[in-house]
Amino acid sequence: MEKGYERIHQPELRNHVVSAEEAASWIQDGMTLGLSGFTRAGDAKAIPFALVDRAKTEPLKVNVYTGASLGSDVDKLFAEAGILNKRLPFQADATMRKKLNDGEFYFVDQHLSHTSEMLRQGTLDKIDYAIVEAISITEDGLIIPSTSIGNSAVFVEYAENVLIELNMAQPTSLEGVHDLFSLEKQGERGPINITQPEDRIGEKGIRVDPAKIKGIVFTNQADSPSPIVPPDEETKQMADHLIRFLENEVEAGRLTKNLAPIQSGIGSIANAVLHGLLDSDFEDLKVYSEVLQDAVFDLMDAGKVNFASACSITLSEEKMKKVFANFEEYKNRLVMRAQEISNQPELIRRMGLISINTALEFDIYGNVNSTHVSGMKMMNGIGGSGDFARNARLGIFVTKSIAKNGDISSVVPFVPHVDHTEHDVDVLVTEQGYADLRGLAPRERVEKIIDNCVHPMYKEQLREYYEEAKMRGGQTPHVLEKAFSWHTRFAEEGTMLEKKPSYV
Amino acid sequence: MEKGYERIHQPELRNHVVSAEEAASWIQDGMTLGLSGFTRAGDAKAIPFALVDRAKTEPLKVNVYTGASLGSDVDKLFAEAGILNKRLPFQADATMRKKLNDGEFYFVDQHLSHTSEMLRQGTLDKIDYAIVEAISITEDGLIIPSTSIGNSAVFVEYAENVLIELNMAQPTSLEGVHDLFSLEKQGERGPINITQPEDRIGEKGIRVDPAKIKGIVFTNQADSPSPIVPPDEETKQMADHLIRFLENEVEAGRLTKNLAPIQSGIGSIANAVLHGLLDSDFEDLKVYSEVLQDAVFDLMDAGKVNFASACSITLSEEKMKKVFANFEEYKNRLVMRAQEISNQPELIRRMGLISINTALEFDIYGNVNSTHVSGMKMMNGIGGSGDFARNARLGIFVTKSIAKNGDISSVVPFVPHVDHTEHDVDVLVTEQGYADLRGLAPRERVEKIIDNCVHPMYKEQLREYYEEAKMRGGQTPHVLEKAFSWHTRFAEEGTMLEKKPSYV
Repeated sequence: MEKGYERIHQPELRNHVVSAEEAASWIQDGMTLGLSGFTRAGDAKAIPFALVDRAKTEPLKVNVYTGASLGSDVDKLFAEAGILNKRLPFQADATMRKKLNDGEFYFVDQHLSHTSEMLRQGTLDKIDYAIVEAISITEDGLIIPSTSIGNSAVFVEYAENVLIELNMAQPTSLEGVHDLFSLEKQGERGPINITQPEDRIGEKGIRVDPAKIKGIVFTNQADSPSPIVPPDEETKQMADHLIRFLENEVEAGRLTKNLAPIQSGIGSIANAVLHGLLDSDFEDLKVYSEVLQDAVFDLMDAGKVNFASACSITLSEEKMKKVFANFEEYKNRLVMRAQEISNQPELIRRMGLISINTALEFDIYGNVNSTHVSGMKMMNGIGGSGDFARNARLGIFVTKSIAKNGDISSVVPFVPHVDHTEHDVDVLVTEQGYADLRGLAPRERVEKIIDNCVHPMYKEQLREYYEEAKMRGGQTPHVLEKAFSWHTRFAEEGTMLEKKPSYV
Repeated sequence: MEKGYERIHQPELRNHVVSAEEAASWIQDGMTLGLSGFTRAGDAKAIPFALVDRAKTEPLKVNVYTGASLGSDVDKLFAEAGILNKRLPFQADATMRKKLNDGEFYFVDQHLSHTSEMLRQGTLDKIDYAIVEAISITEDGLIIPSTSIGNSAVFVEYAENVLIELNMAQPTSLEGVHDLFSLEKQGERGPINITQPEDRIGEKGIRVDPAKIKGIVFTNQADSPSPIVPPDEETKQMADHLIRFLENEVEAGRLTKNLAPIQSGIGSIANAVLHGLLDSDFEDLKVYSEVLQDAVFDLMDAGKVNFASACSITLSEEKMKKVFANFEEYKNRLVMRAQEISNQPELIRRMGLISINTALEFDIYGNVNSTHVSGMKMMNGIGGSGDFARNARLGIFVTKSIAKNGDISSVVPFVPHVDHTEHDVDVLVTEQGYADLRGLAPRERVEKIIDNCVHPMYKEQLREYYEEAKMRGGQTPHVLEKAFSWHTRFAEEGTMLEKKPSYV
């Protein structure tokens, strides 16, 4: 048997093995594709590459739906090839970012739990081809996903055709870690019977109508490693503030030393902050998150975290080697789920998650911008932060108080794009301190935010804005004609700082 | 037996009957009160009045938590008496509005499903006295609420002391319509086993530790009637557009003629729009909402709606007489629940509600302001609109395209307060038409919104803003220094219209 075929345990399906080029040749201009992949993990690789090759010689535009961001430069190549009509629900590639901000294609920035419901409802274009990475296909035809599940199951269920990339570079020891469960349409479904992160309710793979499987492609390429930046002095301070806040919660009797299941957002800052829990007194922690980054495995190694649930595992190169070489050690403490289960409002609310996500900037009343630089340019997307913050026990947002050596303050009078409203934001953390906004009116929040979160270089300037605003009165005072003046000053003068800060 | 005592079926509790004045005398300066009442229905009346009287002769400040807005001028009297330190989570009284905007007390504008979780967590000040209206107390000590449940059950459960107002003016036929169910703390609870609006999972009254009942007061005052404005030409057009949208959904196979359970927001416009369904072909409809206003009973009378669930019944004077005189006719087609169940993310998502709420204004990308006039002055509050829009099948917002005879456009470049982000808003409806934003990128949404929803007097002006914004590029183009120019022009010149609209 040729190498790879042994991963197809259902013999009839072995006839479907084709080259990536052949599979890609079936995709037609105007089609909609549903690709596996969530934060660089478990993405389809070979067929997208072949599709990009095809686009060099013929006009080709497709819609691309995914779980979240792709690795392997697929989003970069798609964007460069001009192959996209519409892309959703998330991306995190610099080239794609530039081109979508230039208006070269449409990007729809969605809550990551919403795409699947829209597919079920039929409100998104129907998927012509689901293209999903897998480690194997079982005897009874279950597709065993690799390092992410994301939207793969719902793509397979609602697609006209299914293409499978069997990736030899992904560890077969992943088999058994997944928990797949098909939700009925809204109005026809019952409760989702998960009450703790470790509960399993489904099967170990994606059930698929075999008639829909049009092709199986062998690949052999590891996931792109996550470019995790190590903790620095400021992320360490942020972690310390967060720990202090959580310790106060324990002291007040609102949490125990086990806290509550933790969700932590994507990226270096969130990873670094989570990493800080290593130095805390909390114990027997559980994680119920979208993505497991390096920090979660460090916390597991240290005996701090004893169970973790997510829809994707996204690691640095070093960590990837270590974790997958010893995956059996972690497996009984892990479960991977579809992103609509990891990000499900029902479960987030029921379990009362502690949700920690990264903000680009926030304003004096606690509204958060997670997506748009200067209010106009998309960074990555809202991701799951809205699924979590709205429904969690604690919606916590973290960011450094300044950027670009102080030319940008991350705390501003008015955020020029709102992703999380004052109603959803409970706690804000910068390296300066934390502001606990729960149960506070806007005029109370301002004081906490300015006192605790703003960098000293911007404190007085922000207080001046607020003092002027207060003269105008209202529940939420503002000076509308100056609300975005910090952003326009940055655009014109390269800094949000007034020319001569009065504290100089 | 003195009149009223027959409503206290547990004999020992009859010793607790006191005057409202005596009950009010127990409340001390600095305490926190949890009052029944949701959108003018089922509010505690006598003890609040007595408290206001006390405040005339002694300094008294309290925190007041409720379900939502109160009737019987209680919020007006509280505000005038200067009795408030903090008020949450909603209000709708003109005097209170003025005083909170003047900064006389703190108002915390919360998602209506969140207050109960915060009480359970211990993140709000502990309630010293729950004061709840009831129609009776059963033999086994259940408190049978009146025309609203709101937060009453959780107030009773978490308060130190409980005061009950037995209101003789409320119909005893309400007994049996309520469904009360105590949620465990987050992390300790299971699924909420409601899959259809008619499912009942609890008891007919609020279970209470009898030792906490400190006083029972008799009252005899009807709820304040709802000031429902009859449908006008524009609300009729809005209803027609909404029906057309829903008919298209049926035609596309995304909904059936029974649609999906409907939630409709508070107020005249939402009521009028819902009223419009009388003239539709939809049938066997179900309602799963916060509040039932007149329109729902008209739809029941017409055989359009066959079941309705809510946490409050708020009717006009005429309708109140008719419905409560014949309540047995409606009772088996109604259930009343706590507001955390009517507004529960788990259930809203599971059942896939069609959610219809009122916007103050929205912007060219579909961000909605529901709360702040000119971005600063609180109108009423977000209410449950965020609980619903985020988690519903369809988040629909309705508003008239202009206000103040055209000096205000309800569609603006940038909303000066965001309550619902672009991620949560699916469909916008004005009397001009509807914009279906599902699956659209920001630059696609602008076109639909300007073409379909904007009043002709503002169309060109809005297009000019967008054309200038587009030159700056980005996923979500804006001209930040002009983003609020419509609002500042209104503040300075009394109109959002540019002096000489180019179409003149």
